[in-house]
Amino acid sequence: MTRPDTPLLDRVAGPSDLKALSDRDLAKLSDELRAEVISAVSETGGHLGSSLGVVELSVAIHAVFNTPMDKLIWDVGHQCYPHKVLTGRRDRIRTLRQKGGLSGFTKRSESAFDPFGAAHSSTSISAALGFTVGRDMGKPTGDAVAVIGDGSISAGMAYEAMNNAGAEGRRLFVILNDNEMSIAPPVGAMSAYLSGLYAGGPLRQMKALAEGVEAALPGPMREGARRARQLVMGGGQGTLFEELGFDYIGPVDGHDMGQLLAVLRAARAQATGPVLIHCCTVKGKGFAAAEGAADRGHGVSKFDPVTGQQAKSRPNAPSYTKVFGEALTQEAARDPDIVAVTAAMPSGTGVDIMAKRFPARVFDVGIAEQHGVTFAAGMAASGLKPFCAIYSTFLQRGYDQVVHDVALQGLPVRFAIDRAGLVGADGATHAGAFDIGTMATLPGMVVMAAADEAELVHMVATAAAHEGGPIAFRYPRGSGTGVALPERGEVLEIGKGRVLREGSDVALLSFGAHLTEAERACDRLEAEGVSVTLADARFAKPLDMDLIRRLARHHAALITLEQGAIGGFGAMVLQQMAAKGLLDRGLAVRTLHLPDRFIDQASPDEMYADAGLTSADIAATALLALGREARVVAFRA
Amino acid sequence: MTRPDTPLLDRVAGPSDLKALSDRDLAKLSDELRAEVISAVSETGGHLGSSLGVVELSVAIHAVFNTPMDKLIWDVGHQCYPHKVLTGRRDRIRTLRQKGGLSGFTKRSESAFDPFGAAHSSTSISAALGFTVGRDMGKPTGDAVAVIGDGSISAGMAYEAMNNAGAEGRRLFVILNDNEMSIAPPVGAMSAYLSGLYAGGPLRQMKALAEGVEAALPGPMREGARRARQLVMGGGQGTLFEELGFDYIGPVDGHDMGQLLAVLRAARAQATGPVLIHCCTVKGKGFAAAEGAADRGHGVSKFDPVTGQQAKSRPNAPSYTKVFGEALTQEAARDPDIVAVTAAMPSGTGVDIMAKRFPARVFDVGIAEQHGVTFAAGMAASGLKPFCAIYSTFLQRGYDQVVHDVALQGLPVRFAIDRAGLVGADGATHAGAFDIGTMATLPGMVVMAAADEAELVHMVATAAAHEGGPIAFRYPRGSGTGVALPERGEVLEIGKGRVLREGSDVALLSFGAHLTEAERACDRLEAEGVSVTLADARFAKPLDMDLIRRLARHHAALITLEQGAIGGFGAMVLQQMAAKGLLDRGLAVRTLHLPDRFIDQASPDEMYADAGLTSADIAATALLALGREARVVAFRA
Repeated sequence: MTRPDTPLLDRVAGPSDLKALSDRDLAKLSDELRAEVISAVSETGGHLGSSLGVVELSVAIHAVFNTPMDKLIWDVGHQCYPHKVLTGRRDRIRTLRQKGGLSGFTKRSESAFDPFGAAHSSTSISAALGFTVGRDMGKPTGDAVAVIGDGSISAGMAYEAMNNAGAEGRRLFVILNDNEMSIAPPVGAMSAYLSGLYAGGPLRQMKALAEGVEAALPGPMREGARRARQLVMGGGQGTLFEELGFDYIGPVDGHDMGQLLAVLRAARAQATGPVLIHCCTVKGKGFAAAEGAADRGHGVSKFDPVTGQQAKSRPNAPSYTKVFGEALTQEAARDPDIVAVTAAMPSGTGVDIMAKRFPARVFDVGIAEQHGVTFAAGMAASGLKPFCAIYSTFLQRGYDQVVHDVALQGLPVRFAIDRAGLVGADGATHAGAFDIGTMATLPGMVVMAAADEAELVHMVATAAAHEGGPIAFRYPRGSGTGVALPERGEVLEIGKGRVLREGSDVALLSFGAHLTEAERACDRLEAEGVSVTLADARFAKPLDMDLIRRLARHHAALITLEQGAIGGFGAMVLQQMAAKGLLDRGLAVRTLHLPDRFIDQASPDEMYADAGLTSADIAATALLALGREARVVAFRA
Repeated sequence: MTRPDTPLLDRVAGPSDLKALSDRDLAKLSDELRAEVISAVSETGGHLGSSLGVVELSVAIHAVFNTPMDKLIWDVGHQCYPHKVLTGRRDRIRTLRQKGGLSGFTKRSESAFDPFGAAHSSTSISAALGFTVGRDMGKPTGDAVAVIGDGSISAGMAYEAMNNAGAEGRRLFVILNDNEMSIAPPVGAMSAYLSGLYAGGPLRQMKALAEGVEAALPGPMREGARRARQLVMGGGQGTLFEELGFDYIGPVDGHDMGQLLAVLRAARAQATGPVLIHCCTVKGKGFAAAEGAADRGHGVSKFDPVTGQQAKSRPNAPSYTKVFGEALTQEAARDPDIVAVTAAMPSGTGVDIMAKRFPARVFDVGIAEQHGVTFAAGMAASGLKPFCAIYSTFLQRGYDQVVHDVALQGLPVRFAIDRAGLVGADGATHAGAFDIGTMATLPGMVVMAAADEAELVHMVATAAAHEGGPIAFRYPRGSGTGVALPERGEVLEIGKGRVLREGSDVALLSFGAHLTEAERACDRLEAEGVSVTLADARFAKPLDMDLIRRLARHHAALITLEQGAIGGFGAMVLQQMAAKGLLDRGLAVRTLHLPDRFIDQASPDEMYADAGLTSADIAATALLALGREARVVAFRA
């Protein structure tokens, strides 16, 4: 594939080289940078749309500010590809999101130009405020610049940070990257408000212009001009950002290099307190295929850089997400009380499938997991049957609400926990590692995990039927195993597992989607002459203690297996076994779980290999537990 | 003690009786209700100031709305005493916050008039929105009314809910109870903004008046009046609440029954969408001793209802909180990089002690745990040494930030986790049950618990010295054990426990402040002729595996002990022991932890007895594990 011609970009080894370029050359450089990003992502796939929206902004910030002494913090971080190209990582940009390659997000360990990594939204202003305190207390750090999208700034955390930053009054730059479109079109009143700010017509534009001019003026004159403008424009209150103590500059055209440079230079020269620069951009800017797409090329596969045609993977089985969405829709068709909540992820969670048929019963609350969980609790208290569909990693944002509003009150909220376990290219920040423990330790919570997509259908039915309290079920990212799907899910007996193979030497007790790998481990062990019982626990809470007692009694070793961290399923099994005295007489128990470190991005299979959870690892653990150590070395090789 | 004379209140069995009273009698009733609340809390102690602030509001809401069909949701719920008196719980109001008595918060299981319980802040609007959806989908529920304080509305969760409610546009009532003072004076830009709203002088008052009048007008006229007013007052933007899609009414004098009734009636009659009623109240209103106190009588002990003099408990030892605050201040005096973060709890966490000496290095971020944690992470990234002091139960609000911003990046944030374990009168909602597991499962996190206040001093020193990554230490509510305090904390060796008694039959491995109870259990066991080893693990992560191996090798039973839920310290011990094969040959291990249910309020000792964690329980568990079952029955009796 031919690479784009990038004579200016070829001369840029780092941001310091931008200082020598004219404004006109910076604009040209942006065009080259855009072409480079399109070319790179066509090979790797990734967050194309967001990155294309901030090409000019990336160049302008690095041209005006003194990174890495000044701390540039990209909220979420998925729009960082142009930033990575500019900051010495161009040679590795075609390894994005791949094993051993660059992260798809900002990452402290990757570069001094990534002072604060991200991947979850709305953290940037908090972190930036932290750096400003460091600067003001004499640490070797310059200005802090947070770049945050309109979707992310709607989250409560960003509001908390603005509220605190406004009150602190420290010099701090927040650039609102407003593309009216985060992943899905953003929802909520804040979004409508932002639209109003730049759709306000000539008066608003005049104000923007006036402010741009003001900002460039020397201090004393600036204040005079500001007062004059306020008199002219009416004495009304300012923008919401001004109410919160920020100076508001904007809206600025985020693809106009001249405007961007002027505003950033003026802001940098003049700011004494917190400043919000409202910058309007187009997601997918400059690449027709992305600009034309419904999601503006938010996350793309490898594609043809000319036509924009994405490579299609042809999975043999439907994704868990789709199976969930369809099973939920079926249940919703039968029961008018079923409603669904998503936090800005209607298609990511599959509730868009239900929304097509029952739009009034699906609620997208925006990036607001805290509110989403308690809103679901309120609906449950009113007698509805809410399914709260949130990725494992993002449910962490609503943890206190799960504890305090759902579990403590015993309200029947159904938690559909997608992206449980390791998730592939999104890496460590998106791993669903901790939900088993955080949910199963809560009194009254029922916790299930689906071993395959047919099990998921049963668990949706089980959750729909469960009215006695909260219930959660987890399932992984990606395609199912290809099993036949039941026409209708059956309601599982709460707290009962199932036995899949009967053996006598070692028992494998699997929780969730690692069952496939467990089956492979069984094959390996049986090939070694070891007789294996394989069971699917289905429930981490309540545990099937009859099953566990049987496994303990009739085997020399018991291995638990889960796609999650320590303190999860294995912990529940061990603590219950200990309580019942099942460990007193000796049993070689091993709990296999994610290791005590974060796993970098790769394919899910590679990540599980990195985690020591392949079928070979499982079999080796079983053999070791049985005391057959000699075989192991050969086995792993 | 003489009870107040309350002829009107005596005739009120429930809110329906208020409908028959004249407006003037409702005002009189409020006076009687205030006297009753003061009298009751003088006997029980509790959240006096907040309750006194909403006496008139409680009467007015119940007089105007149709509770319990209409859902009244008190944010936090600690201001609910007048509400409880009015809703059929007057006969039990003098059992507030006591074992077997009324909860100090709203609680679903207590009354149909408490449709959604609370205790943590900022959940009410989310829950209310959930009820409105239920109503709109045909569930037997009327209007939803959330009453939220100015401190609580500053939290991100409330903002998320307003944002969503504004966009949904459903009929919903939010009453902002603005007393400029939550627990500590509220901080942040939002607070300043609210002050501005009612400190705006005559224009603002005119607007309030005009709006009050407007609201009482029939629909079409109302809109005309509104437009006229807007023309008169200038075409500026509305309040922040209006920007978010709410109709804004106010400010209203929350102690003027006439104003309150008029505004609530008009709002109830007219509202088609979400309405925010801005109601200004005085915390502690009507009781001189509370109005005069710095915290306006936020949380009081039993007191003399005439003089307001509070009963003083005379603890033999300083509180853990105070010991922490002083140890932190000492470390801060030695190291200028130490900073502290609190989320609206400067005195509750003891960082006010440091703030007195180093005001510029202590940051109160408001009720904003999410922001607080990431702000601390940003400061750590800049090279500072932040201590993030948050109660165990509230740290749940910042869980994702601990995972994503601190642990994933390995940033050295020090978490000082106060109120760990059961906390007494505040009950189940405030229990610090889950922090051990949620922290210890995170890669790179060091987790300590203080067995006594001297240990706490060492742990503060250890945390200050620990630069390699995040570190957490937990300690309970209340007084220490009375041990001598070291002049200066020593830096503990990471991952090393200590042995306190050497024995040979059973080993007790305690983590944290239950050590005192463990010592009593040792005495009981030794009296029974059982030889006991007692160890203090100090660390849940990393575990002292040498110590655990020794304990496992030389004893017939091993009992772990912690003031926390399943999935915590005991789980870590068991999973690590299993991994090392220490369970293979048999060992009677038992992990004692909080039971799988929420524990209602009582004294901490009573709560631990309820939880089955007394010295007798521990000794009985040890005896059972040793197979000495016969003794147990006698033992427990």
